[in-house]
Amino acid sequence: MSAPNQLQNLIDLMARLPGLGPRSARRAVLHLVKKRALVLLPLAEAMRQVAETARECLNCGNIGTTDLCEICESGKRANGELCIVEDVADLWAMERAAVFRGRYHVLGGTLSALDAIGPEELRIPKLIDRVATEQITEVILALNATVDGQTTAHYIADQLEGRVKVTSLAQGVPIGGELDYLDDGTISAALKARKSV
Amino acid sequence: MSAPNQLQNLIDLMARLPGLGPRSARRAVLHLVKKRALVLLPLAEAMRQVAETARECLNCGNIGTTDLCEICESGKRANGELCIVEDVADLWAMERAAVFRGRYHVLGGTLSALDAIGPEELRIPKLIDRVATEQITEVILALNATVDGQTTAHYIADQLEGRVKVTSLAQGVPIGGELDYLDDGTISAALKARKSV
Repeated sequence: MSAPNQLQNLIDLMARLPGLGPRSARRAVLHLVKKRALVLLPLAEAMRQVAETARECLNCGNIGTTDLCEICESGKRANGELCIVEDVADLWAMERAAVFRGRYHVLGGTLSALDAIGPEELRIPKLIDRVATEQITEVILALNATVDGQTTAHYIADQLEGRVKVTSLAQGVPIGGELDYLDDGTISAALKARKSV
Repeated sequence: MSAPNQLQNLIDLMARLPGLGPRSARRAVLHLVKKRALVLLPLAEAMRQVAETARECLNCGNIGTTDLCEICESGKRANGELCIVEDVADLWAMERAAVFRGRYHVLGGTLSALDAIGPEELRIPKLIDRVATEQITEVILALNATVDGQTTAHYIADQLEGRVKVTSLAQGVPIGGELDYLDDGTISAALKARKSV
């Protein structure tokens, strides 16, 4: 509590960001104060702009600056394939891989009995609606390989059974992975899904 | 580059902060967008306030919101002892320890031949001026125990020789430290400075 009030206030707010704690927040704020023109003012302005413009896409739940996000509005994306992700961060990860040319649907989380998150809390009704009204031929479940992610994947696959082809990402040894460092579950999944060479 | 432009701009700016990289900046920005009212708007406002008000203390180099910082202006601090630190972060660390009741002088870095940082680039002339004009009885060198920090400490001690009593922080085993994990230099320093029990 040795910083002046306004600085301490900024440090406290920064320290609440994921990945930052009190120590790194102090370092970041000192850096900001020292580089006022180069970093602090542009950052404050960028935050103001994002606060004003960022919104959820009404269709898929992605974050954009318009009612419909760039991907939903794009004429260059294939309409048939719909990739289901938990979170916008996962959508960005898929886009960085740059192999999927279809459209997305962001659930906004996973089903969780403990946290009382049911299908209505996620964007699952909207998903079922999209499958019914858009020309979707395949739903690709790209949910995280966690217990909650897989539970949610099973639930969605159940809901969509008979309406559309449902697939999910392959599980196995990651590229560059060494068996010695992999957990039992991954090795087991990779063995079960082995393919002929 | 899958985020919309304004978001990507904010991510790029955040990623330049110390302690954050592209991945943690993306996480932080998604968190900001999701908690617009609770986090993003207060953070943007706190940054704007700090950008407007934060300034270096004209006397000691601490960061405050007025021409003279709270510590320099305070009537409760002892005038005799002057603690020399490299950076405002170090001053804050000293203040968190809450054992020093004197005043500070922030150098703003260390002497470095490689980076062409000489005494004039630091606040060393101002320090000598303060020693000559203020009622200072002891200068405490609280510089980092790095090569640059110790070089700077030696230089300052040379400059002030004969004018005022100069001391420096003790070196030794840190509280809670285990010998097995300490480097040779620390053990050596602790042995040389051993004291009778």
